[in-house]
Amino acid sequence: MELISIDDVRAAADDLAGPVVRTPLLPTLWDDELWLKPESLQPVGSFKLRGATHAIARLGPAARARGVVTHSSGNHGQALAYAARAAGVRCTVVVPEGAPGVKVDRIRALDAEVVLVPPVRRLAEAERIAADTGAALIPPFDHPWIIAGQGTVGLEIIADLPEVDVVLVPVGGGGLSAGVATAVRALRPSAAVIGVEPLLAADARDSLAAGELVVWDVERTYRTVADGLRTQLSALTLAHLRDRLDGIVTVTEEEILAATGRLAREARLVAEPSGAVAVAARLFHREELPPGRTVAVVTGGNVDPALLARLTAAAAA
Amino acid sequence: MELISIDDVRAAADDLAGPVVRTPLLPTLWDDELWLKPESLQPVGSFKLRGATHAIARLGPAARARGVVTHSSGNHGQALAYAARAAGVRCTVVVPEGAPGVKVDRIRALDAEVVLVPPVRRLAEAERIAADTGAALIPPFDHPWIIAGQGTVGLEIIADLPEVDVVLVPVGGGGLSAGVATAVRALRPSAAVIGVEPLLAADARDSLAAGELVVWDVERTYRTVADGLRTQLSALTLAHLRDRLDGIVTVTEEEILAATGRLAREARLVAEPSGAVAVAARLFHREELPPGRTVAVVTGGNVDPALLARLTAAAAA
Repeated sequence: MELISIDDVRAAADDLAGPVVRTPLLPTLWDDELWLKPESLQPVGSFKLRGATHAIARLGPAARARGVVTHSSGNHGQALAYAARAAGVRCTVVVPEGAPGVKVDRIRALDAEVVLVPPVRRLAEAERIAADTGAALIPPFDHPWIIAGQGTVGLEIIADLPEVDVVLVPVGGGGLSAGVATAVRALRPSAAVIGVEPLLAADARDSLAAGELVVWDVERTYRTVADGLRTQLSALTLAHLRDRLDGIVTVTEEEILAATGRLAREARLVAEPSGAVAVAARLFHREELPPGRTVAVVTGGNVDPALLARLTAAAAA
Repeated sequence: MELISIDDVRAAADDLAGPVVRTPLLPTLWDDELWLKPESLQPVGSFKLRGATHAIARLGPAARARGVVTHSSGNHGQALAYAARAAGVRCTVVVPEGAPGVKVDRIRALDAEVVLVPPVRRLAEAERIAADTGAALIPPFDHPWIIAGQGTVGLEIIADLPEVDVVLVPVGGGGLSAGVATAVRALRPSAAVIGVEPLLAADARDSLAAGELVVWDVERTYRTVADGLRTQLSALTLAHLRDRLDGIVTVTEEEILAATGRLAREARLVAEPSGAVAVAARLFHREELPPGRTVAVVTGGNVDPALLARLTAAAAA
């Protein structure tokens, strides 16, 4: 299987200017060797805008004229809608019936067409639309363009903190972690890239240990509050992680929620639970991590306001 | 009275690398012509770090060896402590007895010495320490170095959005607004710089209308939730604002709180009420503002967690 290279990530970076915010590294007051990479500050609230913007940029003019389609109602769906609007490309998002109205409203507000289908028919419907209309199907993580786009997070980390020792990155489908590991391994070989997963959705840990995809049942992964990390790796992302990731750490639900509250109270960042797992690893599993200057990627900030209110008010972790 | 120039602001910018974060401009999803300048993301949670860092850099080696002192227990006190530690300079912060323990703890955690005195003796005690020890007294806004340091916010806005039409900046003591107006007026003369105040602490509006300092009683200004904006202008900051500010808009308490909640829910930023007034002006007083591409400075994020929790949970404004 062909893996992406640092040149692919560099090429992606050239395509991102415009819709994608160049996020800074933020030092923390509670840990002299911890910096945050706040991708929650992207316009749609997550790093997914990078991969989506890059994928659209890679389409030829004829393909762009036919539009794009995806079947994610979460952060990728919003990101693709935003990136498509910025590029003047038509976008369709297939959403499962029963999805929260606020998510549907947000995608429509970004001028994308929303197609509601029964949950089991999401992928089939997206593929049907692609076949019927010629729209390009843009998956949330399982594609070299997406991995290269997300990898620009790693490029920026190395540019802003060339002496970084450890990069902590959440692992869901593995697009971000594969891209970041590619960039960091190439530009700062001595630094370790550590993936972080919820203990309740540790399929990447199991897959890396087994050397092949280990799929967790949806009933198991849906127990975690980190809804963005319930996704399973693909063969493509696993191949990247096997080659380039230095390890996996798992965090508990309590640790994830405590880290989310800590970010609001002490870093002034609104993070979603999935976005806080890397910070949780540094806060609660430091003895499992390599020492030194550490960057934690805060991947997203699309959190339920009621949950955020509860965690903000809670006593400091 | 001598005013600072754009050259002073440019010189300040050279001194800030290191402790001060280069904050990005963040587009908003709810307003196509609004960008946020999130100074809440500075390590101590406010733009005050800019002026404090610049002031310390301007001290000669002998003065730096004697240390710095201030009498602010709020954002300036934390900022000076942080900047002093980063520069290897001793720092003393005079704090009124009865100040919240969390504020005292934060200043001590930044290695500054805390001196507790009765509230009325704050300034006198800081002056006594300066006289006895030779420490430089660094005021929160009433000094050309502070104004020039805060003005770097304006430099960065113009660098990132050269075609900006309107800059909205909160007005407390006037250091930030004086500095930003200096930078924007020099680099983008066609843009308007509009100050924003709470209606319950509109001393800058009154002072600009009268052409001289109009002081509001503490009993009046303390009614606003925007505690960082209860401060009065000084003669120095008023002189800058008379020369360079294009107008003042006032916002109500309800508008301030609604903007604070909006920032948490839709921009993933934790702001303090004082930090949200510029956004409140754009949300609720658009008809009083010039049209076009607008930047709102979000000055700080040191908010009481219980208040933040309440505003986050509230229904969208």
